[in-house]
Amino acid sequence: MGDQLGDIVEGELVYINAQNAHEVLTIHEVHLRARLFADLIRLNALYMIARAGSGHIGSSFSSAEIFAWLYLNEIDGNSTFFSSKGHDAPSLYATLIALGRIDEEFLHKLRRIGGLPGHPDVTFSGVSANTGSLGMGISKAKGMIRAHRIRGEEHRVFVLTGDGELQEGQIWESLVSAANEKLHELTVLVDHNKLQSDTFVSQVSALGDLDGKFQSFGWDVQRIDGHDTDQLAHALARRSNLPRVIICDTVKGRGVSFMEHTAIAEGDCWYRFHSGAPTRSDYQRASHEIWTRIQRAMRNSGLVPPELSRFVSSPPSSAGSGYVHRLIDAYSEQLLEIGTSSDRLVVLDADLVKDTGVVAFAEKFPSRFIECGIAEQDMVSQASGLALQGMLPVVHSFACFLSARPNEQIYNAATERKKIIYVGSLAGVVPGGPGHSHQGVRDLAALSGIPNLVVLQPATEGETRNALKFAIKDLEHSYYIRLVSVPTRYEVEPSTEALQIGCGYTALGGDTRVTIVTAGPTLLSQAMSSSLQLKSQRSPQPRVVNMPFLNRVDREWLSQLCDGCETMIVLDDHYEDGGLGRRLCAEIAIMGLKTVPVVRAIETIPAFGSTDEVLRQHGFDVDAVSQLVRRYL
Amino acid sequence: MGDQLGDIVEGELVYINAQNAHEVLTIHEVHLRARLFADLIRLNALYMIARAGSGHIGSSFSSAEIFAWLYLNEIDGNSTFFSSKGHDAPSLYATLIALGRIDEEFLHKLRRIGGLPGHPDVTFSGVSANTGSLGMGISKAKGMIRAHRIRGEEHRVFVLTGDGELQEGQIWESLVSAANEKLHELTVLVDHNKLQSDTFVSQVSALGDLDGKFQSFGWDVQRIDGHDTDQLAHALARRSNLPRVIICDTVKGRGVSFMEHTAIAEGDCWYRFHSGAPTRSDYQRASHEIWTRIQRAMRNSGLVPPELSRFVSSPPSSAGSGYVHRLIDAYSEQLLEIGTSSDRLVVLDADLVKDTGVVAFAEKFPSRFIECGIAEQDMVSQASGLALQGMLPVVHSFACFLSARPNEQIYNAATERKKIIYVGSLAGVVPGGPGHSHQGVRDLAALSGIPNLVVLQPATEGETRNALKFAIKDLEHSYYIRLVSVPTRYEVEPSTEALQIGCGYTALGGDTRVTIVTAGPTLLSQAMSSSLQLKSQRSPQPRVVNMPFLNRVDREWLSQLCDGCETMIVLDDHYEDGGLGRRLCAEIAIMGLKTVPVVRAIETIPAFGSTDEVLRQHGFDVDAVSQLVRRYL
Repeated sequence: MGDQLGDIVEGELVYINAQNAHEVLTIHEVHLRARLFADLIRLNALYMIARAGSGHIGSSFSSAEIFAWLYLNEIDGNSTFFSSKGHDAPSLYATLIALGRIDEEFLHKLRRIGGLPGHPDVTFSGVSANTGSLGMGISKAKGMIRAHRIRGEEHRVFVLTGDGELQEGQIWESLVSAANEKLHELTVLVDHNKLQSDTFVSQVSALGDLDGKFQSFGWDVQRIDGHDTDQLAHALARRSNLPRVIICDTVKGRGVSFMEHTAIAEGDCWYRFHSGAPTRSDYQRASHEIWTRIQRAMRNSGLVPPELSRFVSSPPSSAGSGYVHRLIDAYSEQLLEIGTSSDRLVVLDADLVKDTGVVAFAEKFPSRFIECGIAEQDMVSQASGLALQGMLPVVHSFACFLSARPNEQIYNAATERKKIIYVGSLAGVVPGGPGHSHQGVRDLAALSGIPNLVVLQPATEGETRNALKFAIKDLEHSYYIRLVSVPTRYEVEPSTEALQIGCGYTALGGDTRVTIVTAGPTLLSQAMSSSLQLKSQRSPQPRVVNMPFLNRVDREWLSQLCDGCETMIVLDDHYEDGGLGRRLCAEIAIMGLKTVPVVRAIETIPAFGSTDEVLRQHGFDVDAVSQLVRRYL
Repeated sequence: MGDQLGDIVEGELVYINAQNAHEVLTIHEVHLRARLFADLIRLNALYMIARAGSGHIGSSFSSAEIFAWLYLNEIDGNSTFFSSKGHDAPSLYATLIALGRIDEEFLHKLRRIGGLPGHPDVTFSGVSANTGSLGMGISKAKGMIRAHRIRGEEHRVFVLTGDGELQEGQIWESLVSAANEKLHELTVLVDHNKLQSDTFVSQVSALGDLDGKFQSFGWDVQRIDGHDTDQLAHALARRSNLPRVIICDTVKGRGVSFMEHTAIAEGDCWYRFHSGAPTRSDYQRASHEIWTRIQRAMRNSGLVPPELSRFVSSPPSSAGSGYVHRLIDAYSEQLLEIGTSSDRLVVLDADLVKDTGVVAFAEKFPSRFIECGIAEQDMVSQASGLALQGMLPVVHSFACFLSARPNEQIYNAATERKKIIYVGSLAGVVPGGPGHSHQGVRDLAALSGIPNLVVLQPATEGETRNALKFAIKDLEHSYYIRLVSVPTRYEVEPSTEALQIGCGYTALGGDTRVTIVTAGPTLLSQAMSSSLQLKSQRSPQPRVVNMPFLNRVDREWLSQLCDGCETMIVLDDHYEDGGLGRRLCAEIAIMGLKTVPVVRAIETIPAFGSTDEVLRQHGFDVDAVSQLVRRYL
């Protein structure tokens, strides 16, 4: 879920390399070895996140002892382990690298192209399932166990889940048949660290009597201190003829005093280390604390601590000329402003208040703010109930989740013919750090065919404000507003025009024979830069058109646009399926226009990596766009 | 869920009209009145279903006392009631008509155009939410209550759910915040009739300790006999500061001895009256039994029974020349055959074994058959786990459910790059009886943008067999096979050719200047009939092309097809978004071909009604297609 952006930590970063990690692995006493290995995981996970500029510290730390104990004592060649929450990927990678199951070079390439994805992916050896706090883990494990049983085999499968993740309905859906069919091979460990993306689970959507819930679903339930390897060992040793869950009480950020959730000051509700990256000073304090503890523990046991490896990080300069647009900030301000004037407006969110920009609204209008937790289906059907009773619900999540998880609920609500506004942030292929589970490049496809739903993607802060106002003012349609979350730098400010359904406008003038049409800041800025680059190279400069309406085309507008336009290059920050390009192509054919369209869209499962890496990979970097234009001008 | 097709019952049908129903409503003793009203509901619901030719008898009967008691004693102008399962729509309509809240003429128009939809729709007065055993009801009720609270009001909301419906994860997702926020206005009644679409809930996915589950989720729980109005009255009178659930033990088909699930013979597991229509003799026995009980009860209390109204039904003759194709039967046979030769093949289903054609496979290969219950997300992620362990899962449900509910799970599985075959039946706009929640006309849209997923829609029995063989043989792609469930009659057999990705073929030769391209039996048969009609009228006869690949276009094939083709008319049994038409249009534009495409697709929320009514409404009847062709030839 939540995946805040951060900055790469500058300066010296430390880690324990695979060879030196071996010293910890040779310790004979199993509990000392596991505790030390857990701290090694923490140190290396912190290194990876600091170097990547983003990742989930809190969750990687809370699960460190679980990873350590399982991998050192429970998992053998016949058993399977995977984390359903997946936020702990840095801990997983640190573990697999220390064990020699992933090459050490990957330690330096978290969230970089050709490196390790932000959430687990089976393309990497040692990763058993694609996950990312999606609530799918128990179901997948059941499928695996059924496959084993069909083959007449019996293997243990261990699944680690988050506690916020337990808000997903699929979790409870998946428990039933596991109990009915006595899938005793299955052990679920809940990393019950009490916090989810935004704040305390208890404040988002309290889990209540968790032990009782699992028991009532027919599972064998144990509850332990998840940092106590002795308790872990005992709990795992117990046998049952039922599937079993071990609820591990843990501390988010465990192992670094000021990162532990128990260190949150009274009255403060925000936890700072769920995702993103630490500051330089937080990094130094944290790594020092972990490393000191490792050294002390080893010396106390008469062992020589392993040698520390060092890397000096020099992040790319983020300065640069141009105009930076932060759409989420603009959206947040506009939502607050409209909330003041319309008392019908009700805001719903699924555990992403910070990422979706609704904190200010929630604080000012608590009675009209509904925090649904990680329960998108429930959220959308609640919105449907609110709309049926005359309210105007504005529903928030990441584009990837909002368009897919409650897909049937959104269609059902559309058949009730009441107005709902959906706002999907983290839309588009960047940021590329979190990986494909979070890259919102299929939202238009998933939401196509929803009657009366207009899709609107703003490209600037001003257009973001206008988009929300426009969506609220239009009484006839429901809306899906698609928001890019990464700040975007434009070399020059794009021209803007008032929104008009189905119409785009020229954002940067140029030769109309070749026109680039796109939507959203990521590709509009690339298209404009390409046009300026071509101009500076004394090539003809293509016209660049911003088309904020992704599923409505005004035929008169298109006809004018195509007048004198030989080639229309459409750049889609999305798969070609469901994207703007194919829609414009179809209209051109139906209208019998002479313009030949060319579509550049995402063609494969999107690459992960830095923004530059990902844009280059998909042919969206300025050079690639210019090259495409040159073919036609 | 399950919605078997049936035949309109021929001969005399009986009902109690609104005026005569009034006599029951004036009975003073509340329990006698409610019991008699429940039987009136049964008699009229049975009439509606017999006349419609399909509907849910078992569920309408099991909930009759609940409807009667709630509407006669609990629901006032300030309170809201709706059924989340929605299968009991005939009972709802019978109730609202008897109470004068829906005009009596609608009693005769269940599942007919301009009449009453198969599942509830808010366009009808007295219907509060669009439902249909979708697990969304509790969430919607929460939204309604939040709207009331925002306005400073307090109103009671009653939601009726099924028991099979409790397998949906959204139900459990929705319970949490209702308890945390003490939504005491909310009362959920579970019509616990022990059977879901196919068979006993306990055999599909046993609910276990239902009371304990609700209690562990923090709800106030009561359990009663749901046919005992005294117990209903007492349970509803209890106040709580928590949301409350009243689990009503009921009998499916209650009120007609041989329709009661308790009458199922030992060793038999199928219940015959979930959906569809009764036979003539079953109808006569059932209506006689209910009517006799009403008369006896009234006379015993010194009352004069109301007069019975009669209607003589003469269903349209179903005979006719031509070739009938039943795709589900062909699919069922082929699946069984392939199951014999491939032991990697595992079949998954979500409570629709009869509708999806997997009964034979399930009986022959029980160890490779997984009945998931109404839990589509769990089903797809189980398939992902099976595929990760080397199995080839074949996943079944209705197109409408399979494409939308587990949408994120299907995408997630695609990113794991393992092969899965999805089979969506009840695809397309007909049958139109069940209404928009079940009409699979958005599946292609919802499933677009799934990497590596090929969509294949067969048009004949032979092509259905080939489609499954083709999908299994192709090791590179995952597949979505789209199956029309209604039997289709072709005037002449369409020509067929071997399947080749991205290519269609001529099903009926003709003038190539105007070519009709379509997929699936429903519209291929209409297109061919139109072509034959035009020929018989001595007009030029358009060529008709069958294009079974809905999301792949071979450019060489298209180029040849367009050679000499001035107009291509694409008929889409789907919304235009995501449909074949727009894809072909886009290719034509990109390739710079001269053919002008015309797309006829579903443009609005689909109409409900008989097959003929629905096809006519959307411009798919033979005359409308011929008219369209004449514009261009």
